[in-house]
Amino acid sequence: MYMTQALHRLLQQQPDSVAAVDVRETLTRRAFIDRVARIAGALRSAGLQPGDRVAMLARNSVDFYAYIFGTWWAGGVINPVNLRWNASEIAFSLEDCETHILIVESVFAHMIPSIREQAPCLSRVMVLGDVEDAGDAGDYRAWVAGADPVEDAVRRGDDLAAILYTGGTTGRPKGVMLSHNNLAASMLGSMLALRALERSQYLQTAPLFHIGGMSGMLAGLYTGATHVFLPAFDASAVLTAIDRHRIQELFLVPSMLRMVVDHPDFQSFDVRSVRRIRYGASPIDGGLMDRAIAAFPNAGFVQAYGMTELSPVATMLTEDDHGEAGRASGRLRSAGKAIPTAELRIVDPEGLEVPRGMVGEIAVRGPGVMLGYWNRPDATREAVRDGWMHTGDLGSMDADGYVTVVDRLKDMIITGGENVYSAEVETALSTHPAVGQAAVIAMPDEKWGERVHAVIVLRPGCSADPEALTAHCRATIAGFKVPRSYAFVDTLPLSGAGKVLKNILRDQCRAGN
Amino acid sequence: MYMTQALHRLLQQQPDSVAAVDVRETLTRRAFIDRVARIAGALRSAGLQPGDRVAMLARNSVDFYAYIFGTWWAGGVINPVNLRWNASEIAFSLEDCETHILIVESVFAHMIPSIREQAPCLSRVMVLGDVEDAGDAGDYRAWVAGADPVEDAVRRGDDLAAILYTGGTTGRPKGVMLSHNNLAASMLGSMLALRALERSQYLQTAPLFHIGGMSGMLAGLYTGATHVFLPAFDASAVLTAIDRHRIQELFLVPSMLRMVVDHPDFQSFDVRSVRRIRYGASPIDGGLMDRAIAAFPNAGFVQAYGMTELSPVATMLTEDDHGEAGRASGRLRSAGKAIPTAELRIVDPEGLEVPRGMVGEIAVRGPGVMLGYWNRPDATREAVRDGWMHTGDLGSMDADGYVTVVDRLKDMIITGGENVYSAEVETALSTHPAVGQAAVIAMPDEKWGERVHAVIVLRPGCSADPEALTAHCRATIAGFKVPRSYAFVDTLPLSGAGKVLKNILRDQCRAGN
Repeated sequence: MYMTQALHRLLQQQPDSVAAVDVRETLTRRAFIDRVARIAGALRSAGLQPGDRVAMLARNSVDFYAYIFGTWWAGGVINPVNLRWNASEIAFSLEDCETHILIVESVFAHMIPSIREQAPCLSRVMVLGDVEDAGDAGDYRAWVAGADPVEDAVRRGDDLAAILYTGGTTGRPKGVMLSHNNLAASMLGSMLALRALERSQYLQTAPLFHIGGMSGMLAGLYTGATHVFLPAFDASAVLTAIDRHRIQELFLVPSMLRMVVDHPDFQSFDVRSVRRIRYGASPIDGGLMDRAIAAFPNAGFVQAYGMTELSPVATMLTEDDHGEAGRASGRLRSAGKAIPTAELRIVDPEGLEVPRGMVGEIAVRGPGVMLGYWNRPDATREAVRDGWMHTGDLGSMDADGYVTVVDRLKDMIITGGENVYSAEVETALSTHPAVGQAAVIAMPDEKWGERVHAVIVLRPGCSADPEALTAHCRATIAGFKVPRSYAFVDTLPLSGAGKVLKNILRDQCRAGN
Repeated sequence: MYMTQALHRLLQQQPDSVAAVDVRETLTRRAFIDRVARIAGALRSAGLQPGDRVAMLARNSVDFYAYIFGTWWAGGVINPVNLRWNASEIAFSLEDCETHILIVESVFAHMIPSIREQAPCLSRVMVLGDVEDAGDAGDYRAWVAGADPVEDAVRRGDDLAAILYTGGTTGRPKGVMLSHNNLAASMLGSMLALRALERSQYLQTAPLFHIGGMSGMLAGLYTGATHVFLPAFDASAVLTAIDRHRIQELFLVPSMLRMVVDHPDFQSFDVRSVRRIRYGASPIDGGLMDRAIAAFPNAGFVQAYGMTELSPVATMLTEDDHGEAGRASGRLRSAGKAIPTAELRIVDPEGLEVPRGMVGEIAVRGPGVMLGYWNRPDATREAVRDGWMHTGDLGSMDADGYVTVVDRLKDMIITGGENVYSAEVETALSTHPAVGQAAVIAMPDEKWGERVHAVIVLRPGCSADPEALTAHCRATIAGFKVPRSYAFVDTLPLSGAGKVLKNILRDQCRAGN
């Protein structure tokens, strides 16, 4: 598979359908492929060779979407930049994989001097948007408009398609190398697991620089969706877009879903067009699910579990699993079953499968497993053993293959010799009415080795003290799992995927300990 | 992708569901994987090395299904034998790709001496079934039962999976080499095009030695189907199996569908369980479609077009296309649109795309295109140019990408400088009430270069003379397309896929000319 294939097919089958929409422009398939072919022409004229990396630092837009396919059309490899990084982190990722070309949205143009200084690999920086304050950086749109379209390079399936930096939560970021076949395997397996909607209106809220956003985009593309892009997540903008564009399909992490469903003006929007909501990063609790089902009467819900190294999907919890039976059996708390293009098992530290129901590390094998980490053969060997990607996630599997993720291996707390899964404690805390968000980490403890420490964001206008939270937890989880100490904060550090960055939280808490 | 992956996943997710049924046995997933692992053990103990070919000469059965996966599990390559071949043709294919191991169903055991004599590559021949008259050939089932199960070899996606001999209609058969990824691409693309049924009861009527049968089997497997095998097509047996096994999905070529729908005892069977009928090899005419819809009230219809070299699917006509709109627009006569894993275009002899609506050769690109013809680099280069498989089929494409196949390039007749597509003439003839089957070929002609010649099988109890058929054709097609000569026969030579073997027919007609 080569990811540009879908563009050729859709141009042939529905040339005048709308490929992409954002606040600035609306492009048909025909106009989109012309844009893509010109971007490729511009990149080639800049000396891009097959396999060369091209980076973009931008919010979601039609331009971002076109950059991805323009780079592939030219024969290049995308290396999109995480918007939450500072200039040093960005420069590290560019230098690490020797990226020569960087495109920067004008709202981030102030970072260019600092990035250039730390990333001498860059030979060309172009600015997308207002170029007045961009210094010597070129005007990206003018550059593309002036370029001649070129023919699709038609990459082979095992050619490198993307280098996506990850692992900032656990030390120096690593560049995950994904091939065209890797991305195809996850996309096709996911679609087979969940019955694709055809030619839907797809609202792209997750960032395209992240594999979650990219994966949803590819799945939508292959089924002929029209993509509607918002520059960033905002509950009000999401509701407006659903109403205005008759959105049928969207992807949200549970915290985003909560903000949408609980939006004070929800009732003033028409959301009856929504037929499917995909979510990821974590399960949805029953209370939120009830409200979401009531709020979106025509929608089915689908959960995906995975990671960048798996391109990304490993398991899916289908619409059927979200019904009454799924809730009664507790499967709504699971991440579903392995998709048809993935094999999954739960293993002990020696890599041997553990009995069903036991907790162990989740390992995944199949065509979605990354080619490796860029220039990190040791890290690759440690992660991928005998073809199995060791996810670093802890989970268990039931008799029918349903997988429940209990924690990151690194986030598990060992206190007095007992294993405590932070996610279980967080779930217990989050059912307290005053708790908005909870993150549970290990703190060094002289007596117990580690102790359970909870960092709490209270709901607006609510209050709760450690004694009340401890009493609440004692009612639902075992005594050794109950937090021994608490911190109350305004916000938690979050990753691009909306996950709590526990390494940063641990550093903060231990520094203040 | 590696084709054995589905077995691991289904064993994990539904170990006690029924994997396969035939007249002799019923196997759960667990029992099936045990069988497969033992076959692999037996093959390895016989010296099978990764990539070695294993052949089977047998009718459809659970044993055939297990042979395919046992060979893959061992790391080998399947080389199934076409049941319509004689011993010389079989020996040619075995010698051509140096197959050492052949498994023969006992009903074909009488062919073994002749095959062995002409295929010295064979080091081991085993008999499946009654071994009394099998001479020195071993007992396959006893051999497998006595073998130790081994671990799955876990082939890589680009490893060779199958060598399927084809092209007997046009000279010396060629071994089409298909990788695991080739088979996966067709299967996943098809499933994405047609919305998969989950865990259906799937009746396997098409022969497993043919890519059509194999492809349906793989698609069923990946969605967790139970496979019900019949040793050969028989309308009565099909109806009995549908009724008895509550069949939901089946594959038929139109001639088979006609026999099933027109079966005199049709009404005595309960066929309400059937939800989907796939067909291939040719479109279905409106009259048969009407009767089929009435006969199977709960079924949707799906057509696939492809060839062995494409693993095999290139286009699909979906259930929706079979509705009123599809019939009104004439799309029911088309083969549908390219599936999401294939790109298709209509090209002239120089390989350039022709305008929509014009007839040209159908060319296909994508991950389903074969690795090549075994040991035939020249034939491979001729067929696959710049990644495009030149199918040898003539067709046209409409504005929305729907493809209509008009003829095999080699079957087109050039008479007085005009192109005549044999399929169009055959369609005109087949609407005459006395015509059961019609095949139209070129005959050498001094005046016109070639002339249109029709070979007719009359319906039982009907009669028609050349004058009547000519008058009938003149009413629907242009004068130069109307047959100039006729032959009336009892049967037409057919391929394993139920297609008329026109090279044989041409030889017969020209010999008798």
